[in-house]
Amino acid sequence: MPSETIQLRGHIIDSLILPKVLDEIISHGATFKIGEVNIGEQRKDQSFARIEVMAPDANTLDALVLRLRQHGAEVEEKKNVQLATAPADGVFPQDFYITTNQRTFARIDDTEIEVHPTLMDSAIVVDRASKTATAKRFREVKKGMETVVGHQGIRVEPLQRLASHSDLFEFLSSPASVEKPKSVVIREMAQEIKRAKGGNGRILVVGGPAIVHTGAGEHFEKLIAGGFVQRLFAGNALAAHDLENALFGTSLGVNLEEGGLARQGTQNYLRAINAVCGAGGIRPAVASGLVKRGIFYQCVKHGVDFVLAGSIRDDGPLPDVITDVLEAQKAMRAKLDGVTMAVMMGTMLHSIAVANLLPATVKMLCIDINPAVVAKLTERGNFQTVGLVTDMEPFLRELTSCVVGDR
Amino acid sequence: MPSETIQLRGHIIDSLILPKVLDEIISHGATFKIGEVNIGEQRKDQSFARIEVMAPDANTLDALVLRLRQHGAEVEEKKNVQLATAPADGVFPQDFYITTNQRTFARIDDTEIEVHPTLMDSAIVVDRASKTATAKRFREVKKGMETVVGHQGIRVEPLQRLASHSDLFEFLSSPASVEKPKSVVIREMAQEIKRAKGGNGRILVVGGPAIVHTGAGEHFEKLIAGGFVQRLFAGNALAAHDLENALFGTSLGVNLEEGGLARQGTQNYLRAINAVCGAGGIRPAVASGLVKRGIFYQCVKHGVDFVLAGSIRDDGPLPDVITDVLEAQKAMRAKLDGVTMAVMMGTMLHSIAVANLLPATVKMLCIDINPAVVAKLTERGNFQTVGLVTDMEPFLRELTSCVVGDR
Amino acid sequence: MPSETIQLRGHIIDSLILPKVLDEIISHGATFKIGEVNIGEQRKDQSFARIEVMAPDANTLDALVLRLRQHGAEVEEKKNVQLATAPADGVFPQDFYITTNQRTFARIDDTEIEVHPTLMDSAIVVDRASKTATAKRFREVKKGMETVVGHQGIRVEPLQRLASHSDLFEFLSSPASVEKPKSVVIREMAQEIKRAKGGNGRILVVGGPAIVHTGAGEHFEKLIAGGFVQRLFAGNALAAHDLENALFGTSLGVNLEEGGLARQGTQNYLRAINAVCGAGGIRPAVASGLVKRGIFYQCVKHGVDFVLAGSIRDDGPLPDVITDVLEAQKAMRAKLDGVTMAVMMGTMLHSIAVANLLPATVKMLCIDINPAVVAKLTERGNFQTVGLVTDMEPFLRELTSCVVGDR
Amino acid sequence: MPSETIQLRGHIIDSLILPKVLDEIISHGATFKIGEVNIGEQRKDQSFARIEVMAPDANTLDALVLRLRQHGAEVEEKKNVQLATAPADGVFPQDFYITTNQRTFARIDDTEIEVHPTLMDSAIVVDRASKTATAKRFREVKKGMETVVGHQGIRVEPLQRLASHSDLFEFLSSPASVEKPKSVVIREMAQEIKRAKGGNGRILVVGGPAIVHTGAGEHFEKLIAGGFVQRLFAGNALAAHDLENALFGTSLGVNLEEGGLARQGTQNYLRAINAVCGAGGIRPAVASGLVKRGIFYQCVKHGVDFVLAGSIRDDGPLPDVITDVLEAQKAMRAKLDGVTMAVMMGTMLHSIAVANLLPATVKMLCIDINPAVVAKLTERGNFQTVGLVTDMEPFLRELTSCVVGDR
Repeated sequence: MPSETIQLRGHIIDSLILPKVLDEIISHGATFKIGEVNIGEQRKDQSFARIEVMAPDANTLDALVLRLRQHGAEVEEKKNVQLATAPADGVFPQDFYITTNQRTFARIDDTEIEVHPTLMDSAIVVDRASKTATAKRFREVKKGMETVVGHQGIRVEPLQRLASHSDLFEFLSSPASVEKPKSVVIREMAQEIKRAKGGNGRILVVGGPAIVHTGAGEHFEKLIAGGFVQRLFAGNALAAHDLENALFGTSLGVNLEEGGLARQGTQNYLRAINAVCGAGGIRPAVASGLVKRGIFYQCVKHGVDFVLAGSIRDDGPLPDVITDVLEAQKAMRAKLDGVTMAVMMGTMLHSIAVANLLPATVKMLCIDINPAVVAKLTERGNFQTVGLVTDMEPFLRELTSCVVGDR
Repeated sequence: MPSETIQLRGHIIDSLILPKVLDEIISHGATFKIGEVNIGEQRKDQSFARIEVMAPDANTLDALVLRLRQHGAEVEEKKNVQLATAPADGVFPQDFYITTNQRTFARIDDTEIEVHPTLMDSAIVVDRASKTATAKRFREVKKGMETVVGHQGIRVEPLQRLASHSDLFEFLSSPASVEKPKSVVIREMAQEIKRAKGGNGRILVVGGPAIVHTGAGEHFEKLIAGGFVQRLFAGNALAAHDLENALFGTSLGVNLEEGGLARQGTQNYLRAINAVCGAGGIRPAVASGLVKRGIFYQCVKHGVDFVLAGSIRDDGPLPDVITDVLEAQKAMRAKLDGVTMAVMMGTMLHSIAVANLLPATVKMLCIDINPAVVAKLTERGNFQTVGLVTDMEPFLRELTSCVVGDR
Repeated sequence: MPSETIQLRGHIIDSLILPKVLDEIISHGATFKIGEVNIGEQRKDQSFARIEVMAPDANTLDALVLRLRQHGAEVEEKKNVQLATAPADGVFPQDFYITTNQRTFARIDDTEIEVHPTLMDSAIVVDRASKTATAKRFREVKKGMETVVGHQGIRVEPLQRLASHSDLFEFLSSPASVEKPKSVVIREMAQEIKRAKGGNGRILVVGGPAIVHTGAGEHFEKLIAGGFVQRLFAGNALAAHDLENALFGTSLGVNLEEGGLARQGTQNYLRAINAVCGAGGIRPAVASGLVKRGIFYQCVKHGVDFVLAGSIRDDGPLPDVITDVLEAQKAMRAKLDGVTMAVMMGTMLHSIAVANLLPATVKMLCIDINPAVVAKLTERGNFQTVGLVTDMEPFLRELTSCVVGDR
Repeated sequence: MPSETIQLRGHIIDSLILPKVLDEIISHGATFKIGEVNIGEQRKDQSFARIEVMAPDANTLDALVLRLRQHGAEVEEKKNVQLATAPADGVFPQDFYITTNQRTFARIDDTEIEVHPTLMDSAIVVDRASKTATAKRFREVKKGMETVVGHQGIRVEPLQRLASHSDLFEFLSSPASVEKPKSVVIREMAQEIKRAKGGNGRILVVGGPAIVHTGAGEHFEKLIAGGFVQRLFAGNALAAHDLENALFGTSLGVNLEEGGLARQGTQNYLRAINAVCGAGGIRPAVASGLVKRGIFYQCVKHGVDFVLAGSIRDDGPLPDVITDVLEAQKAMRAKLDGVTMAVMMGTMLHSIAVANLLPATVKMLCIDINPAVVAKLTERGNFQTVGLVTDMEPFLRELTSCVVGDR
């Protein structure tokens, strides 16, 4: 019966790593012997366990160890990664190692090298000369690139829950539910955002058009003006509706000012797109004085870097929209440096797309009135993701008041 | 081919009555000749149409005319209602006329008498001596009561859209959607509530426990203290959670105060129920000083009449809960006099139950974060019902600020 | 610093009990020393851990140990429970112990006695003479009854995940999601139902009116006729719609037969209720030949015990409906003996109510097209509850075909 | 007071056109005099109304008439359209006429010309030499193109409800609801699909990955093999999951075969993409024998034209995916010729995108388990769109059995 000895280190009890590992072993039809267990007495102490894993055949053992590595298990005897060359542009070797969003190390020529960036669902391309290991997506790989295959020589360092975590992440780790004390949670979220700003991290907002439709644009503008947003990723719709509001005071033809609930259909929406097309884009439209207010006006004025990614639903789209989705992904990835917090608001498509690009270390706040969206974003979750099911306008009203105001 | 001539009067064009009537006729396989059409030139003017309806057989004609009466059609030749006696307690004659929530008149001995109360899904019991016609539910009918059968002699006066309606009801008549300018809509709702109070109407609130869970209790208290609530219909859960909050500062064990997100499970919830059971109920618990704050404290202090209806989910329940559902229905109906506005918040069960008891003339505001609940309540709708999909805490925060504050 | 030594036994690693216990300790601001850990080498082996828990003060320690007991922790020195008398009918002593849905033992006069029934959110009333311990709900307690207070002397035996569990419960333990291979899951559910029947367990179905509205009644009838349902708990609506269908072939006026999509409103619904009221209830209506088909016809014919619990939304209700909700709870509890599987379909109110009455050992299958309902029922979950988000008609079509047919 | 006389023709009563027109007039603060009303006696007869519209000022009148034209109103005095040249590539003249999805005619040099294609939210570009009028989207317009401005000379011919419509479209015109007799509705949908095929119309399916996740792929394959699908529009996810299933028998790592509910994460999904990338795309992968079954295998084998549109969520994507969203829109529009029925299943993004491209004459069936998606697609609705809230796998199982089988 083939066997291998693995080691687990860290907060393997309270991060639930040990039980998950044992579960995996059993589920694969393998068995285990626990050799040594050294459980930290205090929460801050690290624990250690050495486990011998026995599987019915070598293939099963291989597949199992691959899974255990995802949980941070190290195989005792250290080996180098195995490499194969990419057979064509855009094609990985058949058995390529698939990355997670956790920190990952590849042992190359007996030295462990960290893989950059931390990017899930990618392959690892190795350059032995420069001693670098790079996570690459399908379209980025070129024929002949040396790519890690199998799982040998790979070590994953899963994010561990820290004692320093605020109440918020503990509290909201339960399934998405509408039954939360909203005001309290929003105040905690405001604290997280202030903390992120204080720590010189960059804050990324991913936003959908509901921000404008629900009348929350004015609150969001204050957040930007207050310096609490460094990056804004969105689609054509958020921008077009914001510009409609800036130019005509309406959103989808609905007057957002008090007392005026008349509808005017999509006329203003399309005329706003046309006007900004005529100006040559958002920045020139702000520069020329055509656009004098709104979310994107504030972005331009306060130097917030925005990326607008196209979708097949788009009307127009605005000249600023990157209509090629791979280019849009690339543009977003290029703007993730230094981002320590991501706030996802009112968009499933963009939120999931961006979540797929983020390393597990970035804290994520997900807010949507649709429980399914919040569940989808948090269920993949790590200890760093929290979700709140609530309405956009009052959420941003309260959040902004806590973050920007003196509350 | 049997035929009958019907008349339509009122705002039959813009209330969509005429087209609906013509549709019904065609749908039943009948045909029509429009004899006279007199369409009001101005919106305030009434219109009139006389239509001859021809059906293939008498049964179809009967069934059709029954439907047309629901739309307000009058059959030209006026006949008296037909009566049959109830065969047993709780049982109507087989072909009993089923009421709607619209004003209804029964022609008895050549005189039209209005049916009271206006209550849907009931039978009409007639007392010829006192010349009264009463809507009765199943369990209220006694053997031998004279009950209207068939549809002859019945006239329904459907509620018609009035020019005087505010923007709100026009605007929100579209399907429930989360994409509304929330702040503007809430301000309009606040206007409606102020108008209802100013017009000396009574305001009924139907509320679910989400009011407390989301931390909206404090806002609701202000609404009560401000005199904007005369009736509160709810279940055991709203009261028990409110009392848990009043006694322990938690809701389902979640601390509603800032900074304290620790969970303590259902302990406090059950201890609060026990404590109020020990006091003998809500009113004695307030009187004795055990309960010193909260929604029900404010109800007792400000004389708001509340009805707590039982459900099979109830824990406890509190001594104030009416555990027999028919008794609870009766208690609610007894408190509907003078109610001109009903605000349904965060409960499907109670909202639908109460909506079934209300005449069409009562304006209804339905607020829930679940679009399905709002859709269910508004789809039955008449021009007097509006729904808003939003979160309870910020909704009540904003509404209260508009209604009670000077905004 | 006050301390207490606790012991954990069983599958404390793979049932995640140990990490949860350590987490609880830290979360309460306490610390721990792990004295002895004995981890089972094979999955079937039991593990053992002895942990010294130190808290800043006695109150915190008490509260903490209370929590740890919920996870199965035993305090080393065995003490008897503390008792106090109920101060009035329907009122427990202030500090009464609150039960869970797990097997529970109370040490009385140095003997451990199991508490019956296993019923959550209850108090434990002790009769020293007969050496019995009974879980009682609020309205069941009488003045003077001896009731357990505090947590001393109580041992909880949490349900542990068994190796013998089928794939189904492992697989569906993830959050409710619509993205499941439906046909496969339904076939596994069918296996569970067959297994339950084979094991001489009783199968309880809790059903809502969607069974009839979606046209699934005919499938459900086959399940009953096949002997796969021993208990049916529902509300007035399921019965009334089933009877409408049996008498008129419609559900809410919608013809369920092919080709006939005409609507006839609530007429037939109310006439069906009236007809069955006239017959004196469901059983006499079947006996007299008035009702010749349908779900409740099959229940009567095959001796399925049904309980219809009232709600304030009820029309009628039918004579069979228990209109007092406490009586209805009592009637349901009286019919739980021998039930080993509960299938909840298409009703939130009744499903939650019944789930609150079931011990953790009863397997629960929850099926609803609304993800929120499934989430609500499974999130409380233990290893024995699984949920599926799907549509009622095709679910029951497929399930019945698997269970009754030879597939 | 400026005034204009409009004419309405057609089924203006039962298509609700007349009341909507009168409503619009009042809502714009204008008044009307009804000159002549000629209501068809039989349903098949056309009606006619001549209405004088008076507005406080010319601007309001203009805006109002613009709206009335959307409802099919004709202004009595026939004028030619007004034209202006596009100021730059991708920019329309400021006051450009915005099209709907209804048939539209432009009067040019005293001749009415139909605008092609029927495409909403576009401008109308006129070529006087060739006497053509073309609907163009933003990015299609070139500097100098003659574009219709204002609304003069435009006539819209709204789709009118036909007596020949089947029950289905009448019945399902009510708001999206889960409470429908599913089996009956699906059989009616099957009839519509057979009718569309029989009428030599092309059937377009727009599908999401839930088709594969829920295990409905095998049913869909039969629909394709039976010749009931001519066009398939989807995203990378549907194709990638179908190919994962074809190559590995799993969907997102979940084994779709009976009995195997083990999860293997996203491994197979990414390996399937890589394998098809290696083959050079879907068609070569089928040709080479790599892919031997599945939805796209059937598409290739039966000559179904498919378009895969990119999104920023895509993994890979497959070589067949059009990553530029404007190119993808163009590719879809190029394949709409002859399409008379569109079946939208399990995707909000693609369904809305395609719905925006379809003329009102194409019948739409929208199926999703999420009521919000169905509501979104049907609320824009005309008499030709119906929605059903149900689960994908059983839906396709039943539909295919009705359409392909002999049921």
